[in-house]
Amino acid sequence: MALTPTFAIPPSFLGVPLEPATARFWVAGVPFDLGTTNRAGARAGPLAVRHASRMLVDGDNPANWRDPRTLGLADAGDFALALGDISASLALIEQQAAQFSHLVAIGGDHTITLALLRALAKRIGPLGMVHFDAHVDTWPDNFGQPLGHGSVFYRAITEGLVDPRRMIQIGIRSPVARAVYDWTLAQGVQIVSAEEVHMSSPPAVAERVLAAVGAGPVYLSFDIDAIDPGQAPGTGTPEVGGLFTWQAMAILKRLGGLDFRGMDVVEVAPAYDVAEITALAAASVIWQYLSLQS
Amino acid sequence: MALTPTFAIPPSFLGVPLEPATARFWVAGVPFDLGTTNRAGARAGPLAVRHASRMLVDGDNPANWRDPRTLGLADAGDFALALGDISASLALIEQQAAQFSHLVAIGGDHTITLALLRALAKRIGPLGMVHFDAHVDTWPDNFGQPLGHGSVFYRAITEGLVDPRRMIQIGIRSPVARAVYDWTLAQGVQIVSAEEVHMSSPPAVAERVLAAVGAGPVYLSFDIDAIDPGQAPGTGTPEVGGLFTWQAMAILKRLGGLDFRGMDVVEVAPAYDVAEITALAAASVIWQYLSLQS
Amino acid sequence: MALTPTFAIPPSFLGVPLEPATARFWVAGVPFDLGTTNRAGARAGPLAVRHASRMLVDGDNPANWRDPRTLGLADAGDFALALGDISASLALIEQQAAQFSHLVAIGGDHTITLALLRALAKRIGPLGMVHFDAHVDTWPDNFGQPLGHGSVFYRAITEGLVDPRRMIQIGIRSPVARAVYDWTLAQGVQIVSAEEVHMSSPPAVAERVLAAVGAGPVYLSFDIDAIDPGQAPGTGTPEVGGLFTWQAMAILKRLGGLDFRGMDVVEVAPAYDVAEITALAAASVIWQYLSLQS
Amino acid sequence: MALTPTFAIPPSFLGVPLEPATARFWVAGVPFDLGTTNRAGARAGPLAVRHASRMLVDGDNPANWRDPRTLGLADAGDFALALGDISASLALIEQQAAQFSHLVAIGGDHTITLALLRALAKRIGPLGMVHFDAHVDTWPDNFGQPLGHGSVFYRAITEGLVDPRRMIQIGIRSPVARAVYDWTLAQGVQIVSAEEVHMSSPPAVAERVLAAVGAGPVYLSFDIDAIDPGQAPGTGTPEVGGLFTWQAMAILKRLGGLDFRGMDVVEVAPAYDVAEITALAAASVIWQYLSLQS
Amino acid sequence: MALTPTFAIPPSFLGVPLEPATARFWVAGVPFDLGTTNRAGARAGPLAVRHASRMLVDGDNPANWRDPRTLGLADAGDFALALGDISASLALIEQQAAQFSHLVAIGGDHTITLALLRALAKRIGPLGMVHFDAHVDTWPDNFGQPLGHGSVFYRAITEGLVDPRRMIQIGIRSPVARAVYDWTLAQGVQIVSAEEVHMSSPPAVAERVLAAVGAGPVYLSFDIDAIDPGQAPGTGTPEVGGLFTWQAMAILKRLGGLDFRGMDVVEVAPAYDVAEITALAAASVIWQYLSLQS
Amino acid sequence: MALTPTFAIPPSFLGVPLEPATARFWVAGVPFDLGTTNRAGARAGPLAVRHASRMLVDGDNPANWRDPRTLGLADAGDFALALGDISASLALIEQQAAQFSHLVAIGGDHTITLALLRALAKRIGPLGMVHFDAHVDTWPDNFGQPLGHGSVFYRAITEGLVDPRRMIQIGIRSPVARAVYDWTLAQGVQIVSAEEVHMSSPPAVAERVLAAVGAGPVYLSFDIDAIDPGQAPGTGTPEVGGLFTWQAMAILKRLGGLDFRGMDVVEVAPAYDVAEITALAAASVIWQYLSLQS
Repeated sequence: MALTPTFAIPPSFLGVPLEPATARFWVAGVPFDLGTTNRAGARAGPLAVRHASRMLVDGDNPANWRDPRTLGLADAGDFALALGDISASLALIEQQAAQFSHLVAIGGDHTITLALLRALAKRIGPLGMVHFDAHVDTWPDNFGQPLGHGSVFYRAITEGLVDPRRMIQIGIRSPVARAVYDWTLAQGVQIVSAEEVHMSSPPAVAERVLAAVGAGPVYLSFDIDAIDPGQAPGTGTPEVGGLFTWQAMAILKRLGGLDFRGMDVVEVAPAYDVAEITALAAASVIWQYLSLQS
Repeated sequence: MALTPTFAIPPSFLGVPLEPATARFWVAGVPFDLGTTNRAGARAGPLAVRHASRMLVDGDNPANWRDPRTLGLADAGDFALALGDISASLALIEQQAAQFSHLVAIGGDHTITLALLRALAKRIGPLGMVHFDAHVDTWPDNFGQPLGHGSVFYRAITEGLVDPRRMIQIGIRSPVARAVYDWTLAQGVQIVSAEEVHMSSPPAVAERVLAAVGAGPVYLSFDIDAIDPGQAPGTGTPEVGGLFTWQAMAILKRLGGLDFRGMDVVEVAPAYDVAEITALAAASVIWQYLSLQS
Repeated sequence: MALTPTFAIPPSFLGVPLEPATARFWVAGVPFDLGTTNRAGARAGPLAVRHASRMLVDGDNPANWRDPRTLGLADAGDFALALGDISASLALIEQQAAQFSHLVAIGGDHTITLALLRALAKRIGPLGMVHFDAHVDTWPDNFGQPLGHGSVFYRAITEGLVDPRRMIQIGIRSPVARAVYDWTLAQGVQIVSAEEVHMSSPPAVAERVLAAVGAGPVYLSFDIDAIDPGQAPGTGTPEVGGLFTWQAMAILKRLGGLDFRGMDVVEVAPAYDVAEITALAAASVIWQYLSLQS
Repeated sequence: MALTPTFAIPPSFLGVPLEPATARFWVAGVPFDLGTTNRAGARAGPLAVRHASRMLVDGDNPANWRDPRTLGLADAGDFALALGDISASLALIEQQAAQFSHLVAIGGDHTITLALLRALAKRIGPLGMVHFDAHVDTWPDNFGQPLGHGSVFYRAITEGLVDPRRMIQIGIRSPVARAVYDWTLAQGVQIVSAEEVHMSSPPAVAERVLAAVGAGPVYLSFDIDAIDPGQAPGTGTPEVGGLFTWQAMAILKRLGGLDFRGMDVVEVAPAYDVAEITALAAASVIWQYLSLQS
Repeated sequence: MALTPTFAIPPSFLGVPLEPATARFWVAGVPFDLGTTNRAGARAGPLAVRHASRMLVDGDNPANWRDPRTLGLADAGDFALALGDISASLALIEQQAAQFSHLVAIGGDHTITLALLRALAKRIGPLGMVHFDAHVDTWPDNFGQPLGHGSVFYRAITEGLVDPRRMIQIGIRSPVARAVYDWTLAQGVQIVSAEEVHMSSPPAVAERVLAAVGAGPVYLSFDIDAIDPGQAPGTGTPEVGGLFTWQAMAILKRLGGLDFRGMDVVEVAPAYDVAEITALAAASVIWQYLSLQS
Repeated sequence: MALTPTFAIPPSFLGVPLEPATARFWVAGVPFDLGTTNRAGARAGPLAVRHASRMLVDGDNPANWRDPRTLGLADAGDFALALGDISASLALIEQQAAQFSHLVAIGGDHTITLALLRALAKRIGPLGMVHFDAHVDTWPDNFGQPLGHGSVFYRAITEGLVDPRRMIQIGIRSPVARAVYDWTLAQGVQIVSAEEVHMSSPPAVAERVLAAVGAGPVYLSFDIDAIDPGQAPGTGTPEVGGLFTWQAMAILKRLGGLDFRGMDVVEVAPAYDVAEITALAAASVIWQYLSLQS
């Protein structure tokens, strides 16, 4: 064991250095939460997830004996935002995201994914999408707001950032307008409900993901409310009956063959968290994702 | 999406109108908790469950594309009680319950179910019973108190309000006197332990419920402590090893064929809750129940 | 005593009726929090303050034996907003506020006061201002945002909504740019720091308020962070060394002679509250204000 | 220092022995809360106060260099109750209280004081009363319940257990019916509002207490809601503007000349407490009271 | 039902007597937490677990209709410790543990198990070990500290207190150095990961335990972080993806054939708990263990 | 206003740079808590205080229009420790502290002050001491441990690190052995009880401090439990009746004439904190101290 106990590790993600020039993967916080429609507070997510990540600095991932800190990982700090202005903030996020070749973003609410995908798709074209969430997030608007967090994939699909025929959603279970749900399916998106995950098994779900996404560049967008409120209470739009963390982790670790180009974990709202368990779940998802990289 | 965000919906259940004359289903709060034997505070359940229900006002139930708000649903407010007096309160609850043709009650502790059943059975005779709980609640008394929350089904059965041969209990797992347990079985009640649910599957449990209850009028009494303390900490007598919300929801949605005449969700004690997850579980159970109605 | 215990009072402010045509005073919630610069969540303030107000429904105000419920008071519910859009929301708030002759608004963040003052000043001209706060809120912008909650009185003064020579601020203590502070004084605003209140007495402070504001219409804007974080933790920008609730209440009750035309209590962020004490403080301030009316 | 750290002290009050025959003072828990009218949960007070008292086992009271543990103090455990039955519980409490020559009771809600006074007055006649509270507790009934916690001193005075001309109330500040307040004064009770304490000083208040109570046997009844919600959030009917603990302690320590015959601390509801501060305040009040004895 | 409600049961484990001479099983608290490497506070575990155990005093274990209170069970209170000194504390714990023929210890952090095993192995030789944990705890040191809580089984194995060929670990899932993991396997220890438990079933895991441990004396060491953070947040080194309490209970109840000689539950840190659910899980594990005894 | 909102400021104290070579003042965390005798967890203090300090990055101190960030301030991160070993940790802390010319330390428990004083006194001789605390901390040992947090000034005085005739303690109020208290006075230390502060005024107390300490180098050691538990619940040994933050701040700001050479704030235990108010109080004390420097 190293000589710095976990509680004294520097407050970057996994305690890695800030912005070294030689990094291959960057973690950045995006403390934006103007797109939330229910409980607020995802702006405080980045700090909480970084803090919780310190519990993971204690060895290798037993799934494959890798340690994400050895990948060439840096913490780029938090992105600048335009306070109180969604469109201007999205422009700023896109502009900053464009500077990183492989970015892991900690939200912030799900709206940020739109800006992150704009930056990435501009560089490499439409992306496959592995999307964990309780909600389909394909509403044309949210109570009138076209850039709310429930519209992120409606925008991403209609803007051509994501190829819906290479997109799969896992953990879906919220109330939803039938028209929205049907539109999503009609685009070619596959939807795996939380109940289906519970009644199936992680290896089977992973197979479905691999088949749906196939070859080509792909992105992972993980809304923490995919996880059950009992294990991830610290979020804005909780829905009962969610995935368990063991299932999410067991699915993720079987996705090593995909050509991931970036990811985000969003919607951690620490004011509603308990003993940091939501933040730890978010940090663990990132850690598992990074362990897939080589 | 509608133009009122969830956090501004009126504080009735699902934001429905208060007491319209044309309603077919009524939600009412019963803030009574004099029957609790361990942790107090279920009197604050109705407000918390109503508040949490606002998170569900965002579309249809994807199980069958129904929205409970379109059923003809009203919120009748809270029932009047006799402070500090169990018997007088039960009489008041019974009297008020008798005014509604189909009532969904939010407790309050489990004692209220006795009054609700008295009102209903007086009108339509003995009822079948689908009972989710960690406890059998068939004790002759509770530490000497014959009207405590652990005696509600002892009373309901001995008073002839419930037909025990059409009664099934799901989620049972607490310590219990063997004589109490054996008496329950001897009445004809079926007991499905929480472990049995975990080792079986929701469709199989639903089949067992349908077979046990059969045709004829039936009531759903859902003690929130049926759910595991990790997902429903806000209750008075938690027991480890409980049902998961996905299981409860998956069982409920398969009970559409039953002739339900009323329901309650009881034992939500918000002072012990976290980020409203217990209240959300309770609200979701009601929402699922209402989605079964047509 | 009435027969409805406090925990079963309808969830309007003090349990008063919703929107009766005959009211003289209206309480309304304004669940807007896009203007916050630190911790989020004031959108949940209105519900929490209404809930906490139920503890005050138990008699008269012993300061003058009045009961605000007898004034002709109604609860108008929550205002509609434009999700994610500050300017459009302010326009909506102004438009709705204009419909009420005497409005008591529950925020929401302090930005809402700008819209409320626009509506009121349009009708009756520039207002005197009694402003409780930890912050002067006279910054030209907030981290670039001209409509953030720290700029509300910069806007109100420069727009001519408030007469700065009839304005007094009480409880001020935060870090502040010297230029902002000096500009405020230069407009004629009087600043009473929290330390001055602690070293003086409520009657002396009340005298200062009466002298500063004088005759003419006046508005009360109460940012709950004027109160110390130990008594009001549930807010977004807490500052140590704040006023005690007894001081605020003792000052307020001595302001009966002023010609108040409206008020707001803002910045209650329930996710950071404890046992509802911040919400109770906010409800008590409103109750004290209403007790001044006749 | 002793060799047992505070966190391992036996879970009796101050770690004193359970029920030794030679004790002169007894602490007992009375976990009764059927008389509460707002938030429930005072039944859990005794355990919490005992736990918090462990922080006080670390030396003498610097006010007079006494250590209450050396007085001949025992912990008699909790009293038996009749679950769900106010009258029967009061009879049981009275009967058990009669067995102790000098009893310190930890509530439970304020209703228990009625039973405790019945036991004591039966033995030694009407008592003087030092009553700390936010509420006068002299209502003829509470929402219809004549034995609710807001009626305890109405009963005690009308039953002749307390001599109202030797009674003083400190910390009063809640809404109250004017008739109730005037009745109280008409009996001869002196009322010192919380604001008066804040604008005066503890020595002056102590002088008023000594003058009001005079010679003769006296009882201390301390409702923890006398203390401000910021310092004592864990209670059922909080009111802003309360006493500070330093004031209560400074008043109490100047009452050494009174002929105290018993005391209680009531209304600690731990489910609403934070970091045990309410329980610690209650334990400190008892500790200060015991330090007055010789 | 007995006449003492659960909330008034004496604060020993299950309310059993303190130290009767005739006991066959003893529960003792070991409030030691100097060996923790992440979040502190396990010193407060014993009191919290005792308190939570009161919820289990309400009948027999339905698994086999036994009630642990009838076994001859006593609560020996808390062990004395050497504050701030790991080695001296371990010596004191060993010395006190040696006085009991069958000891159930409530930690405290996992370091205490080393002392408990030293006392037991000295008497009866190397032990088989059933070890529930998220971590292997076989590190040679913890950030330089050879007696930290992550080294307890490295010490126990190298000191010959445990026979690693009769040792099985269940629930393992944390990051770990590959060398540490491989060393553990090389000693003959069997490791059942949390994912394996989720993908298998409790009866199958119980079979594996019975086969691994075989005949001969065996010890149960249950680190509460074996359980998922959603069900056991109150601990110092949480890891996502953990066991569910129903699984742990279902495995334990199938281990009746083993020759258990002692057990401990460790790492309950109540400051991070919620509504006592972690403490209740710990108490339930002990209660299940005791139910296996005859 | 700057363009980075407070919630996105880098997680160093006040967002200042990490370890620039040109700094004149350094903040460092010392996450050591092996010396605590009651509630654990001060190891998590440094991160929490740094986080809370972000709320202060919003302008100048209105007391003197200085901004501590312009002083030449750096954040040196956390000190290395010897896990589980008090003596070795103190040696490490002393060694690291010796590298900084003017150090502001964030604890950690009060034991760390001994090491910090050893480093400083070695360089500049015995120090005057301004000591805010609820406890005298001059016990020869703590439940047998000579290096516990209650012995720090017994050691500092007997080792000659502090000149007791230039030492003053403010806020004292805990139970204490008379011999310990008398020894402290006999050394020449002045003790200002919390009650004396409440009955006097901050300017008068500041005069007493200035007179006691006089010219010559002086150190500020601020135990956060000097502050009342209502304003600083997040600490290990709370005592009721404490100082208010306004008093502490008002005293500190009048000490500008003293020749301060270093300071610490200790005993912040975030697991017991609420809405970060304790951490904010600690950060504010440091910010006020730094504002005195020029």
